Amino acid sequence: MSKYSRVLLAVDLTEDCRHVAEHASILAQLYNAQLHIVHVIEPQSLAYGDEIPMDLSSLHQAIYDQAESFLRELSQGFDIPRTRQHLAFGRIDTEIRRIADEKDIDVIVVGSHGRHGLAILFGSTLNGVLQKATCDVLAVRVGD
Amino acid sequence: MSKYSRVLLAVDLTEDCRHVAEHASILAQLYNAQLHIVHVIEPQSLAYGDEIPMDLSSLHQAIYDQAESFLRELSQGFDIPRTRQHLAFGRIDTEIRRIADEKDIDVIVVGSHGRHGLAILFGSTLNGVLQKATCDVLAVRVGD
Repeated sequence: MSKYSRVLLAVDLTEDCRHVAEHASILAQLYNAQLHIVHVIEPQSLAYGDEIPMDLSSLHQAIYDQAESFLRELSQGFDIPRTRQHLAFGRIDTEIRRIADEKDIDVIVVGSHGRHGLAILFGSTLNGVLQKATCDVLAVRVGD
Repeated sequence: MSKYSRVLLAVDLTEDCRHVAEHASILAQLYNAQLHIVHVIEPQSLAYGDEIPMDLSSLHQAIYDQAESFLRELSQGFDIPRTRQHLAFGRIDTEIRRIADEKDIDVIVVGSHGRHGLAILFGSTLNGVLQKATCDVLAVRVGD
């Protein structure tokens, strides 16, 4: 199948992702495709083992609230309905692929940093998505 | 700029690339963009230093002729004019990026193999394009 029916926009919480979102939105419009959006929270708990101090729980709640608020606001700007907004927890690349599989996504749209500081970190996530995704991936250049 | 004006399709000489070409062609049509195509020949001479035995010269000519013939035939099937067909020599990722820069390309479309044998080889080329390209990259899943 060479035409896309379902597009998944994967975002972090930076301002750069608005540029990536614009690309995904235009792509979805031109292909007359459904646009989904996902943000993945990497649990801080991974760094602390099973025992999480109480004050970290409230920190987690704050992180969740902030992520949800950002996701809702961004989605609204691009007319993405609540049923297509996905907030996930875990490894970023694994969760993006899981949502892509569950929602039968044809193409994942992600931001791709260049040579600035986040390149290696993000590159590794992008590679994880690219090498194991069963669908296409559009890397949108941001930053630099 | 969130709309693409110039699309660069990067192909190897496998049958898989027809599927990638279909994607690039549809993308270009939907965005009303120019479609360019590039194939890169990695010079065998790199493996032999400066001195190339005569029989290798004719081998090189045969490789060139085969690549040119394939590129022309593939381009014809997707209405890509001669002025937008590019046959380059050198490192694949470097040459793809060079053509992309020269032609002011907005998005490079490449095939992305999954877990089969070419994954590592191709993954490294794809990474080279991705990490250093100054434009967007669409990786189209092939094979598996």
